[in-house]
Amino acid sequence: MISSISLQILPLGENRGENQKRVAVIDRVIQFLQAQSDVKLMVCPFETVLEGDYHRLMEILKEAILLAGEENSNIFANVKINYGKILSINEKLQAYH
Amino acid sequence: MISSISLQILPLGENRGENQKRVAVIDRVIQFLQAQSDVKLMVCPFETVLEGDYHRLMEILKEAILLAGEENSNIFANVKINYGKILSINEKLQAYH
Amino acid sequence: MISSISLQILPLGENRGENQKRVAVIDRVIQFLQAQSDVKLMVCPFETVLEGDYHRLMEILKEAILLAGEENSNIFANVKINYGKILSINEKLQAYH
Amino acid sequence: MISSISLQILPLGENRGENQKRVAVIDRVIQFLQAQSDVKLMVCPFETVLEGDYHRLMEILKEAILLAGEENSNIFANVKINYGKILSINEKLQAYH
Repeated sequence: MISSISLQILPLGENRGENQKRVAVIDRVIQFLQAQSDVKLMVCPFETVLEGDYHRLMEILKEAILLAGEENSNIFANVKINYGKILSINEKLQAYH
Repeated sequence: MISSISLQILPLGENRGENQKRVAVIDRVIQFLQAQSDVKLMVCPFETVLEGDYHRLMEILKEAILLAGEENSNIFANVKINYGKILSINEKLQAYH
Repeated sequence: MISSISLQILPLGENRGENQKRVAVIDRVIQFLQAQSDVKLMVCPFETVLEGDYHRLMEILKEAILLAGEENSNIFANVKINYGKILSINEKLQAYH
Repeated sequence: MISSISLQILPLGENRGENQKRVAVIDRVIQFLQAQSDVKLMVCPFETVLEGDYHRLMEILKEAILLAGEENSNIFANVKINYGKILSINEKLQAYH
């Protein structure tokens, strides 16, 4: 079933006090997400939104956290999941963009 | 101090089971946010992101929830607040848009 | 690796305007979570917090959303994931409970 | 109107890589919240939940972020707001505690 999730990565571990270093972890995760050709993606200021098959999205989510964990010792992530008869990204944004 | 917040409104009250009716509440809140000329705004699939003075943003947030509460009997809101030496919306998105 | 996640289920679909009906979906998910004997669990007002092996937690999360989706046509979920050198539920709460 | 909010503080700024230092900021905020005698409070693993008058809660929220900002240069906060005909903390937890 087509679902929509969002992911925000907040690296909390050592040596990440500088914005630049935190952003490097986040960028690597976004690059990983962009490389998934079977999902639609939109990068937003606080989170990246993905649309696609529910099982694929949950697989991608699990991998994305593991990837962030390779870069930083303590990863916090905010995730939103919308499942069922949902509105698509396009339907949500057509009135505003 | 310049801050950044995001707001997602989820109307949980009566007669809001249909996507169309929930969206009407959300649309009214976004129109209110767009009318605030002293803040920068970006509508995203799961949330609307605002950038501006911290005290103004908190005032706008308080009003936005009250406005949603006029339309629906039970309002749930997800809010993110970023305060201090933060990255701007432009700095976060320049590599991706 | 031991991780910690939280899950909040917000049923948005039809016939769920009444608090009572929304709570029935949430209760069924919490009962499912409580039945997982290999994870630690704490029910909080806005979310249920789980602690255990990362891969098990992600499996449980995926199942919990599917279960909620059987009860309601449109499921929204807030999820927090903490992975790496994290503080345990006990370490976080010992000063306050 | 009686409302319920939750607040999670995530200090992202310099010198906060160690869990101990992040926790010191969080503890100071929780002590501030506990000192507000006109709201009900529950400390949870990922967030502190408050129940009370909507306008008071929004005032406390605004102060809590400012307080955290005195301790750390970049504060990220997750906030949930529930407004209207809501369930109380007690109603939500009575079946589970």
